[in-house]
Amino acid sequence: MTSPSRTVTAALLIIGDEILSGRTQDTNLRSLALFLAPFGVELREVRVVPDIHETIVSAVNALRAAHDYLFTTGGIGPTHDDITADAVAAAFGVSIGVREDALAILKAYYATRATEINEGRLRMARIPEGATLILNPVSGAPGFQIGNVFVLAGVPSIMRAMLEDVGPRLQGGARVLSSSLRAAGVREGDFAAALGEVAKARPHVSIGSYPFMQPAPGGGTDYGVTLVVRGREIGAVGEAVETLSDLLLALNVQPEISPIA
Amino acid sequence: MTSPSRTVTAALLIIGDEILSGRTQDTNLRSLALFLAPFGVELREVRVVPDIHETIVSAVNALRAAHDYLFTTGGIGPTHDDITADAVAAAFGVSIGVREDALAILKAYYATRATEINEGRLRMARIPEGATLILNPVSGAPGFQIGNVFVLAGVPSIMRAMLEDVGPRLQGGARVLSSSLRAAGVREGDFAAALGEVAKARPHVSIGSYPFMQPAPGGGTDYGVTLVVRGREIGAVGEAVETLSDLLLALNVQPEISPIA
Repeated sequence: MTSPSRTVTAALLIIGDEILSGRTQDTNLRSLALFLAPFGVELREVRVVPDIHETIVSAVNALRAAHDYLFTTGGIGPTHDDITADAVAAAFGVSIGVREDALAILKAYYATRATEINEGRLRMARIPEGATLILNPVSGAPGFQIGNVFVLAGVPSIMRAMLEDVGPRLQGGARVLSSSLRAAGVREGDFAAALGEVAKARPHVSIGSYPFMQPAPGGGTDYGVTLVVRGREIGAVGEAVETLSDLLLALNVQPEISPIA
Repeated sequence: MTSPSRTVTAALLIIGDEILSGRTQDTNLRSLALFLAPFGVELREVRVVPDIHETIVSAVNALRAAHDYLFTTGGIGPTHDDITADAVAAAFGVSIGVREDALAILKAYYATRATEINEGRLRMARIPEGATLILNPVSGAPGFQIGNVFVLAGVPSIMRAMLEDVGPRLQGGARVLSSSLRAAGVREGDFAAALGEVAKARPHVSIGSYPFMQPAPGGGTDYGVTLVVRGREIGAVGEAVETLSDLLLALNVQPEISPIA
């Protein structure tokens, strides 16, 4: 369900020492942003915090108050460093314990794998009071939703699978549409002032300018700029793209333009 | 310079709509974490914010107060959406304008490329009052340091090159040493309770547990767990690694152990 006139924003809280230490490259930010866009939900803030109870609690409370939705990733497994469920319960001021519905899911999952549910695995059935479960088709142990907070796994394949169960729960707003113009062989500084004028005259779209550099097939470096136009009105986005295309053509640069989507 | 008894922490503020929209995959977080570790500087918090002046100002002020160092990436190019320098100046309450030292660097850089310094490029010489420059050997336009804040480019190759000029300015603390045990064919739930006991008895190290799954060479999925021991005392890290190795061997799992580094 979407209400086309409303701006709906989301935040992501990435929980995990392994991201902050550089051991693991996060990819969940990008997956979430791309998942949310078609629902008309805009990712507007991300924080990465270590596995420290108080830090997680205060980040959850700051972000759930500031945005329509908050997603968390990481820290919901069976081990001692998985403290997200407890921290979210504390943030909401509710109790947490093993829940029968979550336990039933774990029992069914492990029964088919001839695996016992021991003390560690039981931890994964601990769900804050008042939360609803989020299905995990990959490895059984569910995530959960409490209020406007969705608590997801950190392993990317599991996180993405859980999002399928989240989508129908979202009440999106106006979709942000975007189109990009990729201009090779030109530098930002060649047209920055003119670009600034175009952007300033168009308050209903945002125009981002992103230089790129990459090794050229024949040696040396290919460079250029990608301009990204974003906005909620298709007409305004289209007009800005045309104006920018003309600006680049006047510099003898033929941009590759992506369809508005 | 390091003072071995002190914990020195850093935060990273990633500035850019392109990261939040999912268009661009951030890699600077990981590069920075890996760069800082040998200096005894621990990355403890990361925020990603959009290109909005007030949002950047308040994030800069929150993070520079909470940590020994703050790094920012993104938003220091020549275009209208490059607003980081102004936001950092506002956060410090200082003025900003074209600085002669920065302009001299740009002039020298563009002179060798037969490129004019126009209005857009001049923006890249705008530096907050009291800041010192950070060398950019890739594309000329410098970053800058003001107080405990280092303002770096967002393009990964430029950001990494700038870090070379930052390293000598850091006063690190005790290095965090780590070692990992990679255990194939075992699941977290198989030993979570025992692992929790080991971790609880060792307050001077942190033990992280990270499941992995990957396609097996012969089809199906390889799975396992990587345990990461981190701490500032080499003896304590070594003892924990040995204890965990014994725990895994008792489950008939032979871990691959990385040297403590």
